[in-house]
Amino acid sequence: MAAAPAPELTAQTWFNTDDEVLLSGLRGRVVVLSAFQVLCPVSVSIGIPQALRIHQTFDPKEVAVIGLHATFEHHAAVTAPVVKAFIQEYRLKYPIALDQPSRSGPIPQTMERYRMRGTPSLVLIDRQGIIRKHAFGPVDDLRIGAEIGALIQDAGETASLRPLHAGTGIESGFSTPRSPQ
Amino acid sequence: MAAAPAPELTAQTWFNTDDEVLLSGLRGRVVVLSAFQVLCPVSVSIGIPQALRIHQTFDPKEVAVIGLHATFEHHAAVTAPVVKAFIQEYRLKYPIALDQPSRSGPIPQTMERYRMRGTPSLVLIDRQGIIRKHAFGPVDDLRIGAEIGALIQDAGETASLRPLHAGTGIESGFSTPRSPQ
Amino acid sequence: MAAAPAPELTAQTWFNTDDEVLLSGLRGRVVVLSAFQVLCPVSVSIGIPQALRIHQTFDPKEVAVIGLHATFEHHAAVTAPVVKAFIQEYRLKYPIALDQPSRSGPIPQTMERYRMRGTPSLVLIDRQGIIRKHAFGPVDDLRIGAEIGALIQDAGETASLRPLHAGTGIESGFSTPRSPQ
Amino acid sequence: MAAAPAPELTAQTWFNTDDEVLLSGLRGRVVVLSAFQVLCPVSVSIGIPQALRIHQTFDPKEVAVIGLHATFEHHAAVTAPVVKAFIQEYRLKYPIALDQPSRSGPIPQTMERYRMRGTPSLVLIDRQGIIRKHAFGPVDDLRIGAEIGALIQDAGETASLRPLHAGTGIESGFSTPRSPQ
Repeated sequence: MAAAPAPELTAQTWFNTDDEVLLSGLRGRVVVLSAFQVLCPVSVSIGIPQALRIHQTFDPKEVAVIGLHATFEHHAAVTAPVVKAFIQEYRLKYPIALDQPSRSGPIPQTMERYRMRGTPSLVLIDRQGIIRKHAFGPVDDLRIGAEIGALIQDAGETASLRPLHAGTGIESGFSTPRSPQ
Repeated sequence: MAAAPAPELTAQTWFNTDDEVLLSGLRGRVVVLSAFQVLCPVSVSIGIPQALRIHQTFDPKEVAVIGLHATFEHHAAVTAPVVKAFIQEYRLKYPIALDQPSRSGPIPQTMERYRMRGTPSLVLIDRQGIIRKHAFGPVDDLRIGAEIGALIQDAGETASLRPLHAGTGIESGFSTPRSPQ
Repeated sequence: MAAAPAPELTAQTWFNTDDEVLLSGLRGRVVVLSAFQVLCPVSVSIGIPQALRIHQTFDPKEVAVIGLHATFEHHAAVTAPVVKAFIQEYRLKYPIALDQPSRSGPIPQTMERYRMRGTPSLVLIDRQGIIRKHAFGPVDDLRIGAEIGALIQDAGETASLRPLHAGTGIESGFSTPRSPQ
Repeated sequence: MAAAPAPELTAQTWFNTDDEVLLSGLRGRVVVLSAFQVLCPVSVSIGIPQALRIHQTFDPKEVAVIGLHATFEHHAAVTAPVVKAFIQEYRLKYPIALDQPSRSGPIPQTMERYRMRGTPSLVLIDRQGIIRKHAFGPVDDLRIGAEIGALIQDAGETASLRPLHAGTGIESGFSTPRSPQ
């Protein structure tokens, strides 16, 4: 699934946004898609905290974090109000889609379309809307940071090279060279 | 000090390398300079483990990790055999310089030249030999990963754009787009 | 509330047990009462893992771990099936009461009776059924371990002294003296 | 070695105390003997922090923490000034013995006498001077806490039972029963 164009998300409802989020509307930004379930221990202990750190570390003009509650088990229990209360309690501020259930099976539609193997899953989508990474389970901060940093810096084959400085993507003391020799 | 050309290291001795390491010989690679002291608790609990993770995560053809034991306190106790035994016990495999003492004060020469404020310090040097980040104390893995990833991807103003794929820098399932549209 | 007789729990339902658990039926054992909520981040990241460690560390003949889901917020969302699915996913094996809602307010009956300030709360009850500790929020493992260890060893004023050995309470290499002089 | 009388320590020098510490002078207190080496990664990352937590958690009138630097490797490098500087940097405040070297081999005398298998090692000695636990490598806080708590509470076969309250051993809100029925 990696390196294909990222399909749009199909949500039964969205949280933290007035309007449906379209990936096509995020072209030019790196997108981090964080799939989780509120009753999945690894999502809660590892996936969600990492998504929060990504959301806090990068400039939202450069990196858009999108959550996806991919309900593929405990369908009767995990209703929209449960997901909503979880988002409130964990103080998630980025847009989160509640995946659209399938008509024929337990795997919801977006999860199916992305062929996710479970939760947590992490998908990196580049500025052109292409899936560049698709991981299931825990991923090291150092590695995912490097991949996001490379995608921020990567402007695509037709674009002019982007200068590397603090204003584009990484909010830190990362500096631009002063007249390098 | 950031964004200036990185000065060479002055070592009284090197570990894990037969020859003195020259930064000028590492042009084309991103260099991560990890300054530490064996009796500095934050170096040992945070700085060294992070340097090890960086060394394990990135392709050494893309990212060179260099250690610097910047002895600025406990000079009489922390002799070369202590640093050598520490390197062995902590299984550090990257080249490590034991900083050259100053003739006039407690701050050793490389530490002075880089104007480091203490240990641990982390310096990122780009492919052209320019200092791009200089941090004192703990740094998040996500942030340092992003900065290294951007420097890997950054080929400089005169270079052609580097394709982003697993073979260049990040050893992971990070993928190249298949015929992106 | 500490040092008073521990009141019985009032549950709308119990999980992991066929019969209602009565504290009066646990006399002679130390009881660890772990109050939590499935959508409470500190319960999930700290309270529940600690209760699991307590359950795994001590001999159940000596230390009985009892959970209490003290639903005092998100009443409409957090239904019995949500709590049941959480217990399954987090592999909690000890008996857990779903607290009986109040007829007049948000605080459920057992939580009210114990005057708990929130979740997570931890209550230690001695072999005679007396509350010996009542903590709200995170508690160090070392401290709670010491308090449980003391209660295991404490046989009460009228009982004969219990010998300290591996068979009573702590499953470890903790040994009995061989003919101490 | 467990359950035998604890032999006295033989030190080439002591830190953090004016006088040699004799275990015989600590009768009536639980003694936690924490053996470590400054260049042993598991000592530094796990053993030392746990000894510090024990030292901070328990009343020193009840629990005496004693360190032992059991130099069994890197003898030439790890001199007394190295151990002294480490103790200063890690802010260890409890008495620490630098083990007396053997005349015939690498294992120093106290380490040999206690038959320690390596560092870190943790030895628990009861109020009567009997070894009750001897562990090599990491030990859970919960378990070691329980064992210390039991030893604090355990007054020995001939003593009258000690009441359990905050004043004896555990500095916390651990309470005495008010007229238990």
